[in-house]
Amino acid sequence: MSVENAKIDFKRFRETMEASSEIGRVKDTGLYRLALSDKDKEMRDLFRKWMEEAGLEVRIDDVGTMYGRRAGKEDLPPVLIGSHLDTQPYGGRYDGVIGVLMALEAIRTMNDYNIETRRPIEIVNFTNEEGARFEPPMMASGLLAGEFTKEFVHSRKDAEGLEFGEELGRIGYRGTEENRIKDIHSFVEVHIEQGPRLEKEGRDIGIVRGIQGVSWFEVTVQGKSNHAGSTPMHLRKDPMMAAARLISDLEELALEESVLMTIGKISASPGAVNVIPETVNFSIDVRSEDDEERNGFIRLLEERVGAIASLKNVDIDVDHTWTSPVTHFNSDVLEVISSKSESLGYSTLDIVSGAGHDARYINDIAPTAMIFAPSVGGISHDIAELTLDAYLEKCGTLLFEVVRELADRDEIAFDQEG
Amino acid sequence: MSVENAKIDFKRFRETMEASSEIGRVKDTGLYRLALSDKDKEMRDLFRKWMEEAGLEVRIDDVGTMYGRRAGKEDLPPVLIGSHLDTQPYGGRYDGVIGVLMALEAIRTMNDYNIETRRPIEIVNFTNEEGARFEPPMMASGLLAGEFTKEFVHSRKDAEGLEFGEELGRIGYRGTEENRIKDIHSFVEVHIEQGPRLEKEGRDIGIVRGIQGVSWFEVTVQGKSNHAGSTPMHLRKDPMMAAARLISDLEELALEESVLMTIGKISASPGAVNVIPETVNFSIDVRSEDDEERNGFIRLLEERVGAIASLKNVDIDVDHTWTSPVTHFNSDVLEVISSKSESLGYSTLDIVSGAGHDARYINDIAPTAMIFAPSVGGISHDIAELTLDAYLEKCGTLLFEVVRELADRDEIAFDQEG
Repeated sequence: MSVENAKIDFKRFRETMEASSEIGRVKDTGLYRLALSDKDKEMRDLFRKWMEEAGLEVRIDDVGTMYGRRAGKEDLPPVLIGSHLDTQPYGGRYDGVIGVLMALEAIRTMNDYNIETRRPIEIVNFTNEEGARFEPPMMASGLLAGEFTKEFVHSRKDAEGLEFGEELGRIGYRGTEENRIKDIHSFVEVHIEQGPRLEKEGRDIGIVRGIQGVSWFEVTVQGKSNHAGSTPMHLRKDPMMAAARLISDLEELALEESVLMTIGKISASPGAVNVIPETVNFSIDVRSEDDEERNGFIRLLEERVGAIASLKNVDIDVDHTWTSPVTHFNSDVLEVISSKSESLGYSTLDIVSGAGHDARYINDIAPTAMIFAPSVGGISHDIAELTLDAYLEKCGTLLFEVVRELADRDEIAFDQEG
Repeated sequence: MSVENAKIDFKRFRETMEASSEIGRVKDTGLYRLALSDKDKEMRDLFRKWMEEAGLEVRIDDVGTMYGRRAGKEDLPPVLIGSHLDTQPYGGRYDGVIGVLMALEAIRTMNDYNIETRRPIEIVNFTNEEGARFEPPMMASGLLAGEFTKEFVHSRKDAEGLEFGEELGRIGYRGTEENRIKDIHSFVEVHIEQGPRLEKEGRDIGIVRGIQGVSWFEVTVQGKSNHAGSTPMHLRKDPMMAAARLISDLEELALEESVLMTIGKISASPGAVNVIPETVNFSIDVRSEDDEERNGFIRLLEERVGAIASLKNVDIDVDHTWTSPVTHFNSDVLEVISSKSESLGYSTLDIVSGAGHDARYINDIAPTAMIFAPSVGGISHDIAELTLDAYLEKCGTLLFEVVRELADRDEIAFDQEG
């Protein structure tokens, strides 16, 4: 076997994917593998076993992020590759999972061919990328970037009031702060697109230039509860009617301002059919490729909130819980991905990701870029998620070539604006 | 003590209220005493003890409704008085509870004065009037009226999937079908107003002529889930935006058509901040004093649903889960309440109840009417619920006088249209 013609073992990768797809499987093709759940533990245990079998030195840091290190010829900062193994509720099998398992396959392929690299390579499974169980998302990479403290992360609670730190201990993945990765030469994350563009334009590979900016809000509309059969409609302080009007108005505004707005969560309290709610709570997610546009929308949103509160005679509290500005990835790492795609003969498309990723935080501390695989119909965070084998194979091959190249490189100029 | 000047013992009634107000107490002044919960069992056990201490013969029927019988001089159909001891989540202390405890106080007062009545008197605590834990509401009185079967009632499930029949057995209140009350001479239910009219007009007593008609719907809006950062707004099939627009439109329609409309429950699935929902579910409660107006609104509602589904590119399913037409109470029973109010010197107001009550179903099988006590600010189903002592005393006195009168009467002409 010649090192020049080294190829990933796609059959082996497929088998690895299938093993992962059984852990937390729902409705045949879905995964329900929330961070720090029993299923997450089961997946972590298997991933650790795979890493050990591949000869990697395994470390767990203080928020449960898993690293597997393959030594280099020189003791230099490593190339980092990987993503996350947790999923949304009723999420898909591909998402970030392919990013971790392709990283593992790249290592296995290097072992097959006895490839030695100048720099060490580390593969990574970041804890709680999704933020579906513990908010906010991407807490583990955010910790590495200094965005969150360990105390903040450990004290996050899920909907049942269970604490992140305790759940981490319960599943046996509370490691140490000294195990965090420190100096990173470069980071490459593979992920599915989560949008329809690659499939629509018939491209093999998405070269991810950056990530949209995001703001999250928790809105509380406070009215006056009463029995459904009493107070006349026009005398009510009905938070549901205020919320419905506000959401409708914000949709129009988002269309006008060309931002993406999503209301993913909503609830009414006390929550009985025949009771006017006292409060209605809902979330707002706002995204744009342009920070100015996003901030402009937020100003209009706040104005509209004031107008609806006054019109509907309710109190509306808007809590700005999280913001992530637009991310620009590193041009040198992007150039490696481009040139390797070209030499492999893959068609590519430059993309700005609508979703956040761990690469967004790692980009703050090291030269970073991402590679997207096409997702059928652009479906993601859903049991219907599907990436065809042909694209998985191309994406895995590209990652292997990119990491080989990066692991032999000198230091890359790092500039936080990429 | 002369029987002619017999008076209820208001201090004793207040103490009884206070004992009830401790069982399931939340936030100082509220009650959270859902049907067939541990707190409901605790309240039932105490109420059974009180009935036994008052010399009543206690029976439990096959859906857990509790009866306490005081014998009459003749073995005739009894006069029935009472209401329900279950509450909404974070409900109040008064609601139907006063109807049960004033019935108990009427019996205790009769015992104090050794009053014998021609007919037996039975006091009643209907199971699950609220429908907050097991839908629909008023299942126990509906069973007596032939509206629901025992099998239907027993198979109802709460939000956690627990079955009514099993929960009834668990708390020890699964009695027998033969214990159901059969022939009822007349039924009088005392309840708080659940609206502001008595307080606003400064009246002591509400004489309840009937109950508004009600229809319940469960709406399911089905769209297409996806990540919040991908699909452009105008290409989404977003069930939340469709639901918000529909609710806003229906509010306008309800205002135009002079019906009462309430959306008390809403949820989005899968329910994550950064995921466009796949489905949004909400309830609709529509009420009117006029069945034609309510039915006319429902026709317009169905038209609007079709229009929004088409406009927003989603599927909307509207499941009509329950309807109760307008109720007219019995004129002879109402006349007894009127004349006793007059002789006691109480100011009264004729009212049509916006809320459903067990009296609505019992009205189908026996001469029935209701008495309302004023509620401060019209608040109900809320921890802030309050009926002032002066009104509680008048209401209790009136019930005592009304039941004395009815228990000596001949049969009352019964006509289902009242």
